[in-house]
Amino acid sequence: MGGDRGPEVTIPASLDCLKNNPDLKLILVGDEAAILQYLAHRIDEYRERLTIKHASQCVGMDESPSKALKNKKDSSMRVAINLVRDGYADACVSAGNTGALMAIARFVLKMIPGIDRPAIISTLPTIYGHTHVLDLGANVDCSAEHLFQFAVMGAELVKAVENIDYPKVGLLNIGEEDVKGNEQVKAAAKLLENSTLNYIGYVEGDSLNAGNIKVDLIVADGFVGNVALKSIEGAAKMIGTALKDAFNQNSLTKLVGCIAYPVLKSFKERIDPRLYNGASFLGLRGLVIKSHGGADVLAFKTAIHLAEIEIKKDVIRKISEQVEKTLSTREIA
Amino acid sequence: MGGDRGPEVTIPASLDCLKNNPDLKLILVGDEAAILQYLAHRIDEYRERLTIKHASQCVGMDESPSKALKNKKDSSMRVAINLVRDGYADACVSAGNTGALMAIARFVLKMIPGIDRPAIISTLPTIYGHTHVLDLGANVDCSAEHLFQFAVMGAELVKAVENIDYPKVGLLNIGEEDVKGNEQVKAAAKLLENSTLNYIGYVEGDSLNAGNIKVDLIVADGFVGNVALKSIEGAAKMIGTALKDAFNQNSLTKLVGCIAYPVLKSFKERIDPRLYNGASFLGLRGLVIKSHGGADVLAFKTAIHLAEIEIKKDVIRKISEQVEKTLSTREIA
Repeated sequence: MGGDRGPEVTIPASLDCLKNNPDLKLILVGDEAAILQYLAHRIDEYRERLTIKHASQCVGMDESPSKALKNKKDSSMRVAINLVRDGYADACVSAGNTGALMAIARFVLKMIPGIDRPAIISTLPTIYGHTHVLDLGANVDCSAEHLFQFAVMGAELVKAVENIDYPKVGLLNIGEEDVKGNEQVKAAAKLLENSTLNYIGYVEGDSLNAGNIKVDLIVADGFVGNVALKSIEGAAKMIGTALKDAFNQNSLTKLVGCIAYPVLKSFKERIDPRLYNGASFLGLRGLVIKSHGGADVLAFKTAIHLAEIEIKKDVIRKISEQVEKTLSTREIA
Repeated sequence: MGGDRGPEVTIPASLDCLKNNPDLKLILVGDEAAILQYLAHRIDEYRERLTIKHASQCVGMDESPSKALKNKKDSSMRVAINLVRDGYADACVSAGNTGALMAIARFVLKMIPGIDRPAIISTLPTIYGHTHVLDLGANVDCSAEHLFQFAVMGAELVKAVENIDYPKVGLLNIGEEDVKGNEQVKAAAKLLENSTLNYIGYVEGDSLNAGNIKVDLIVADGFVGNVALKSIEGAAKMIGTALKDAFNQNSLTKLVGCIAYPVLKSFKERIDPRLYNGASFLGLRGLVIKSHGGADVLAFKTAIHLAEIEIKKDVIRKISEQVEKTLSTREIA
């Protein structure tokens, strides 16, 4: 039901994913009548792999997380996360209210022992391919220990998803020299240096998209990570607008735009944010994927596909095991 | 002497500025022999408006600020800032080591009474034109009071430079709702709400380039501001690379690139970061402008031009007066 356009986007995306992956089974959670309206006859096509689970409530995009948690016990979000908790689903994918989804997921699924706070991780395109970044906004004030926990979880996810044995981990800072940064970041650097992670040191904001060296995982507190992510979105939007405006100046530039269309299209596809849609909540005892609220069908498909990958790679189990191992090692040390 | 390319860039830029503005007088500070080598015969052209001030030392781009402050008392940076302190120059423009420039400027010029810390302010292009942003990296841990002081100084600069009576001031946060943000930001919001500034509330990272509403000044702590700025640089670099790659795929796309060249050029000019080069240090009793270290002639000219504007608009005096006024009002309240 979530996102700016609800089932109009989520249902066509779901049907496409069922078509593309014959092993995929989906449970559509929400208002049954609304779902059926969008599904129409196509429910018969996937009778064995598509189920509807009715939920009588829906969390609004602007609803406060605490109110959603308290008053919406039969919301589509809550019911979907309950399905994960009870083992009926391997993951929950939602385009709904991020704060409410996080609060409900944390309440229902509980944290992995040893992790204090959940973090939000996603990927960003880079000159070299892409990089993973966390936390993108779940935590506004992080201690060094929190940043370290994020690094441990994120590295395990990258290992599993990218098939890299020793993912390069960077800590987001405002300079690469040791003296730079705030107290938490400096203390987190010490924890990372003394860990078994492949810590490469501080990276600056430009490393999110275009650093001088390839980095697989960038760790930041949620305030900084979120501002960076949104800044990148804004920069991309402004540049896109300027490019469009340049080709829309007059009939001649418009004609040039037509000629350049295939090239501009291939350019756009390479950095299409819809192909990077989907952020995972890490630190919970279950898989929850958050899609951008403004996602269209292609973007929502990417988020479902992310869930498929993380299920297949058994990311939650691997993170839980790594957290247990890493924390016990640290206690001995 | 500063920046990645030193006098090779700063001197041609200086000569261009002298040519463009017949009221401008420049003092070139640094190694006299090196300066003369780049100036050659052109010194005669501007005999009455161009002076060389020899400095026997030079601060390295990677030198520690404290060492530069202690050991480089005859560095070009130090001598140039001394000229500002002693009234021989109205502003110092440097492409050198930012940390050293800030440390020396703070030591030599001293702070405006009522301001605890200097901040770095610059402009960014937006869909609507441009916006001013501070702090871009001078302070890593800011209290609400610091953020408030930044807002007071920044608003005064925007007023003077843009001729706007009530510049719209936004506070950088990770959401627009009251409950969002860390403790410092929430407390700074309260101070701003109770001030005479035209405070419009929280803005998110995308407002730096492409927010839904126009904002004239965005206030952030230096850690967040710097990460955001660098993230934008990285995004622009990645997008630029992807665009170039798309037109460089094969002979046909290259041909299309030639046809589209004038359009792509006008697009590039609109968002050219060289036209936004130059950041002012606010909070000091004198004007210091920092150019990007990698600046070319055009970019360094922009930084000199920024100094010309801020001198003409008497920015430092106006900020000092506003700080005195605002702080005394607050003490009474």
